[in-house]
Amino acid sequence: MAEGTNSSSEHVDPQAAPIGGPDDSFHVFDTTLRDGAQREGINLSVADKLTIARLLDEYGVGFIEGGWPGANPRDTEFFSRAARELDLRHAQLVAFGSTRRAGTTAAEDPQVAGLVESGAPVVTLVAKSHDRHVELALRTTLEENLAMVRDTVAHLRGLGRRVFVDCEHFFDGYRANRDYALSVVRAASEAGADVVVLCDTNGGMLPAQVAEIVADVRETTGARLGIHAQDDTGCAIANTLAAVQAGATHVQCTANGYGERVGNANLFPVVAALELKLDRPVLPAGNLRESTRVSHAIAEVVNLAPSTHQPYVGVSAFAHKGGLHASAIKVDPDLYQHIDPELVGNSMRMLVSDMAGRASVELKGKELGYDLSGDRELVGRIVARVKEREKTGYTYEAADASFELLLRDEVRGRRERYFTLESWRAITEHREGEGGPVEVNEATIKLWAKGERIVATGEGNGPVHALDQALRIGLERIYPQLAQLQLTDYKVRILENRRGTESVTRVLVETSDGNGEWNTVGVGSNVIAASWAALEDAYTYGFLRAGVPMPDAS
Amino acid sequence: MAEGTNSSSEHVDPQAAPIGGPDDSFHVFDTTLRDGAQREGINLSVADKLTIARLLDEYGVGFIEGGWPGANPRDTEFFSRAARELDLRHAQLVAFGSTRRAGTTAAEDPQVAGLVESGAPVVTLVAKSHDRHVELALRTTLEENLAMVRDTVAHLRGLGRRVFVDCEHFFDGYRANRDYALSVVRAASEAGADVVVLCDTNGGMLPAQVAEIVADVRETTGARLGIHAQDDTGCAIANTLAAVQAGATHVQCTANGYGERVGNANLFPVVAALELKLDRPVLPAGNLRESTRVSHAIAEVVNLAPSTHQPYVGVSAFAHKGGLHASAIKVDPDLYQHIDPELVGNSMRMLVSDMAGRASVELKGKELGYDLSGDRELVGRIVARVKEREKTGYTYEAADASFELLLRDEVRGRRERYFTLESWRAITEHREGEGGPVEVNEATIKLWAKGERIVATGEGNGPVHALDQALRIGLERIYPQLAQLQLTDYKVRILENRRGTESVTRVLVETSDGNGEWNTVGVGSNVIAASWAALEDAYTYGFLRAGVPMPDAS
Repeated sequence: MAEGTNSSSEHVDPQAAPIGGPDDSFHVFDTTLRDGAQREGINLSVADKLTIARLLDEYGVGFIEGGWPGANPRDTEFFSRAARELDLRHAQLVAFGSTRRAGTTAAEDPQVAGLVESGAPVVTLVAKSHDRHVELALRTTLEENLAMVRDTVAHLRGLGRRVFVDCEHFFDGYRANRDYALSVVRAASEAGADVVVLCDTNGGMLPAQVAEIVADVRETTGARLGIHAQDDTGCAIANTLAAVQAGATHVQCTANGYGERVGNANLFPVVAALELKLDRPVLPAGNLRESTRVSHAIAEVVNLAPSTHQPYVGVSAFAHKGGLHASAIKVDPDLYQHIDPELVGNSMRMLVSDMAGRASVELKGKELGYDLSGDRELVGRIVARVKEREKTGYTYEAADASFELLLRDEVRGRRERYFTLESWRAITEHREGEGGPVEVNEATIKLWAKGERIVATGEGNGPVHALDQALRIGLERIYPQLAQLQLTDYKVRILENRRGTESVTRVLVETSDGNGEWNTVGVGSNVIAASWAALEDAYTYGFLRAGVPMPDAS
Repeated sequence: MAEGTNSSSEHVDPQAAPIGGPDDSFHVFDTTLRDGAQREGINLSVADKLTIARLLDEYGVGFIEGGWPGANPRDTEFFSRAARELDLRHAQLVAFGSTRRAGTTAAEDPQVAGLVESGAPVVTLVAKSHDRHVELALRTTLEENLAMVRDTVAHLRGLGRRVFVDCEHFFDGYRANRDYALSVVRAASEAGADVVVLCDTNGGMLPAQVAEIVADVRETTGARLGIHAQDDTGCAIANTLAAVQAGATHVQCTANGYGERVGNANLFPVVAALELKLDRPVLPAGNLRESTRVSHAIAEVVNLAPSTHQPYVGVSAFAHKGGLHASAIKVDPDLYQHIDPELVGNSMRMLVSDMAGRASVELKGKELGYDLSGDRELVGRIVARVKEREKTGYTYEAADASFELLLRDEVRGRRERYFTLESWRAITEHREGEGGPVEVNEATIKLWAKGERIVATGEGNGPVHALDQALRIGLERIYPQLAQLQLTDYKVRILENRRGTESVTRVLVETSDGNGEWNTVGVGSNVIAASWAALEDAYTYGFLRAGVPMPDAS
């Protein structure tokens, strides 16, 4: 992500405490990479985790909990790569782990050593605060559990780490045995934990209870408190805000509310409510406008469709359908919008209106350097073409380069390309053999470029890769610029997927020439055909970028 | 829906006031058919509306708002068919409409006449309570607006209708001009409205504000109050419950939270919280257990996939993934569940992932009917095998059937399959022609089944479809059960997708035999190889389900 795309970069000196947060008086603590990854269907690679960490840092959260180093090899690798590869501007990296085991010392506990070795400057320790869980799950005494908290916090503080303590099942524990729950908070705080986080681990709380309990703990112990809310009653956002209103100054959230079972408190609505409803700036100035973009980008990385109905950042969050509303909105948009959608980088949409289409095509054209405002007929043609293609499964939201090619064709009144396809063929063959299965992927393309007929065959580790190789082999002599182009991302989505393997396929390809990246889209009845269409756009756009002159019609 | 499936039918005499509600002291008011239908993507036919009304009535809500008779022909038709066709046991039907127009009488207003003609015993009137909206949107005086409320309520009461008044934008109105907002509540109540509903129309409120304002209105006016919350801050459920705790005794909700923009307060979590958290029975005894079924059935009718992460009723609401949790759950399921899922008709699920270990494999085995608890060595082998496969890109969380096959192989100590692959080949060919492009997809499989060597070729609209066809053509004679199996969903995910087309591919396939569905997973260096692996598991599992005997090793 180029620094220039981050609107905060104009305002914020990364060395100074940024205006409006995060300073240390209030913590936005993200646990997408640890607790969020517990969501059913999410399976993050180390590369995914690094990408998400960069997005969260850009957004401006104060803390990024990266995982449990030592507990699984992937998290260990994440911390070692993060130390080398991540250049965080706003956030500090946090390692999650547990208090030492019963009957040992913190210094001797290998799990605790793993947290230290991760190199993370901050450690969150999970501790039991519910008496029954200490006995049932930890199988130790209440007193030993307190010693485990004290020892582990003190040990890590002694090694220069900042320590937060997550009191698991705090609210249930408080209701079962208030004195014991409070004694865990005191033990953590007195041993040097900066924040004691009250966790509603099974997510059963309602806001009024949360407010009451947080206020009591705050008053009784004087500890700095945080809140970690799960969404099992559908109140995680409200519970988080209730805790803040009762004195908590540290909120643990996950992007898009990802998390186990129903999920966790959703970072974006919590931050938006803090900034816009409770007058508490928690991000670097201007960054709230990145909410929608960051939310959707993270959804892409975890490969879940962005939830259309997310508060603030969902594509439907400011979409208006009701006739009653639509006419009132013409009078005053504020009548049916609780905030200006631009504050969170979202926008109002009127459903059933092609005016929006024309306006956005004009805006998009302007963004790409084409002034279309004078030519109503041209804009109409482009809108019609986009709609026609969208009906077949295309989407241009994430494929600017394909949109620009479409726009260019309409502006010029004809389709211009660097090569003309005659045919392609891809063969994938799999054979069970004595020494394990053997797989061969081979593709042949036939095409015309600069008046020349080209036939080339490529091999690869899949049919699309083979097709890409064939294209390169065939074209590189004629267009040496092709050597600079690299496919850097490739995504497949099956549309209308209630029809099994007969579905329509959409492919998004990201291509780079070392100086920048662009995205193209292709749709087809199968993944190879869709990939071909996206590849063709990708290379055409790359050649245009490189200033390769368009040959005469071939 | 058979009456026998409704567990309440054993307990409840429909003539008597049912034990536990709904009596008139608390109203569960559903507006799925009116406000819920404003959700982007929902378009209900009259038949859909009747089906949803029956489901809501079975569930036991007290009021079903059916639409705005007179405002559109579909709603008018709904009320006339409802009068003839619906035999409601618990609910009363409600017509929604507006106060009379300015400068006329209620008796002369055709819109008001439409409400009367609908025959609904209850009418909800929407009224403006925000001074600015009266002026901007209604373009009348504040005094005339009060007269419109009074006249319309009195007119409908005079005709024997029960009347509720929805005060639109109440909370914003209260904050802008408290006195005027309160005067609207008084006008409605004094004219005979049974309930005055405070609406957070743009959804911008937070629970603490709602609680404060509801308590003030209650105290100042003495009117019976209701709450209607939109979810724009993600707090609609919490706002609804906060209003109840502050004295509201009427909650307006929609099934699955459907509604304009982000949506409305979700009926199921609101009802569950009222019954299970706030000790307020609002449904006929036993009906809460129908929550999951009714939620999913309504999602089917409106043709939206049920939200997997809905509180209480989502398929993931009680799904456990983390190893930490899984081992604790073995000790006591209550540790990580805020309620017993059976109370809302849901169930606990264990997910198999690399964060989990022995405990979750044991629990998952038990769920699938294999008691593994006695055999530590076997469990260890299964865990090792899962981890090894997960390293190559497999995930079993969403592929129970593939996991069961893996489990079965380990339990039996050998891999048993219905057929043995020799080879497959898939060819996709694309040719630009005079009459548009021509595409051919062809696949050939060679395999052994019941001692016979089979060679078959299939065609399809993509290489995977062609492969599936070849398999069917080759195997259907030997395994006629194959004809029953249908691929119903197909998902592709590219893993480690920063390497362009050289990535690893994971495919998830859902298959159905008409009685049930199962999911399988395949991983490969390309989409065809991955699809083959998932298909092989899908059919093997389907044959096992159908009781097809496993042939001797071939």
